[in-house]
Amino acid sequence: MKIIRFQTASGPEFGILEGETVYNAEGDYASGFRAGEPVRELSQITLLSPCQPTKIIAIGRNYAAHAAEHGDEVPSQPLIFLEPPSAVIGPGEPIVCPPQSAQVEHESELAVVIGRRAQRIAATDAWDHVLGYTCANDVTARDLQRSDGQWSRAKGFDTFAPMGPWIITDLDPANLTVTCRVNNQVKQQGSTSDMVFKIPQLIEYISAAMTLEPGDVILTGTPEGVGLIRPGDQVEVEVEGIGVLSNPVVAA
Amino acid sequence: MKIIRFQTASGPEFGILEGETVYNAEGDYASGFRAGEPVRELSQITLLSPCQPTKIIAIGRNYAAHAAEHGDEVPSQPLIFLEPPSAVIGPGEPIVCPPQSAQVEHESELAVVIGRRAQRIAATDAWDHVLGYTCANDVTARDLQRSDGQWSRAKGFDTFAPMGPWIITDLDPANLTVTCRVNNQVKQQGSTSDMVFKIPQLIEYISAAMTLEPGDVILTGTPEGVGLIRPGDQVEVEVEGIGVLSNPVVAA
Repeated sequence: MKIIRFQTASGPEFGILEGETVYNAEGDYASGFRAGEPVRELSQITLLSPCQPTKIIAIGRNYAAHAAEHGDEVPSQPLIFLEPPSAVIGPGEPIVCPPQSAQVEHESELAVVIGRRAQRIAATDAWDHVLGYTCANDVTARDLQRSDGQWSRAKGFDTFAPMGPWIITDLDPANLTVTCRVNNQVKQQGSTSDMVFKIPQLIEYISAAMTLEPGDVILTGTPEGVGLIRPGDQVEVEVEGIGVLSNPVVAA
Repeated sequence: MKIIRFQTASGPEFGILEGETVYNAEGDYASGFRAGEPVRELSQITLLSPCQPTKIIAIGRNYAAHAAEHGDEVPSQPLIFLEPPSAVIGPGEPIVCPPQSAQVEHESELAVVIGRRAQRIAATDAWDHVLGYTCANDVTARDLQRSDGQWSRAKGFDTFAPMGPWIITDLDPANLTVTCRVNNQVKQQGSTSDMVFKIPQLIEYISAAMTLEPGDVILTGTPEGVGLIRPGDQVEVEVEGIGVLSNPVVAA
């Protein structure tokens, strides 16, 4: 099932996309969504981020080859940090390069969307708490990430968490190709099979510290090949089996 | 004005406290609150955290004497990190020491509650975006803070962000005594006048990166004297002109 969010005259609504037809979405993150009446065609709507997390938990250095490109070791346990909900944008919305940074970079990632609340959940039960998956770009001001020490600002600028285009609920995330293209050139290509810590381990580790709420998002880390994006660029994150998240890059 | 949140049969509600009388709260974080009809007495209600932030932005090493007690330099710009909304608890709710940590510590702080949305706000305009102030305990698993490197987990455990007992709107925060007591013994005592970066500078710095939403909270840093709390302890944060936030400490 493809869960979308889209703009209507009365505000954002959830929908279910089947082919080119948008159906009313009944339900919510926690109870799941079901298709109701057909309401629109895909060509008539503006997609929004399908996620409205209360928190975004991101995982650093979760692909060995990416850790190596920055001269870092793979951590012995998940390296987690937080990004603010105010950073979330949807498909097509511009990534704004802030004046504070001279080195804004793309990081293509598989995003896990939480369905049922998860508090101290064992890895073996973790799948019960996953609603589905979407594409994310963990945009990073690399220069500020280095100089700040704590990563929340460098990763947390407004527009630095593009997500979408939709949530796919029926997908095995074990071996999916994650690709990033800038202006149609492939910059990153990796497989989720190379994640150091797999999704069930991540959910166990995170939920042992902080309760995961419905709609919360885990950014599972980025494969090697991260690099600059500049105003005027078009950056695409594609995750096999999900789709393509495309965003223009603009100056502030 | 004292803004409170309290539990009712139909869920949490905002109120205005005058003396011992609770009045209906009309309005919201952004437009401000006004007292309506009297509805309860203080003795009849259970206070909840007065804050429901979409994000909590905490400031590290914002008192020189506290930075020194950990052998750290005062930073040349605000050191910011994020804490998750899932960590928030109210007055009287227990702080739960997680099994992952052998060193849970108190950090008494003045918390700033945002009223009007703040995006790229100059320090000179910052006060227009402040609703008021409350007491906070930035509870920290010090051992994990050191070993994790990124601080979000060590500061982000469920129950690690007690706030309250209310939001005071009419207060000059420039020179307030911030005290922490554990089992009635004073452990921390400092003045907000010793903050390295003052509130308007913090709002300018943070809002230049991430939009502050109504209800968001800035934890302004802790004075020297942080130390252990253990199951069985009672920990109090008092900020002059606001009140006392008291929480028991329990084992997981």
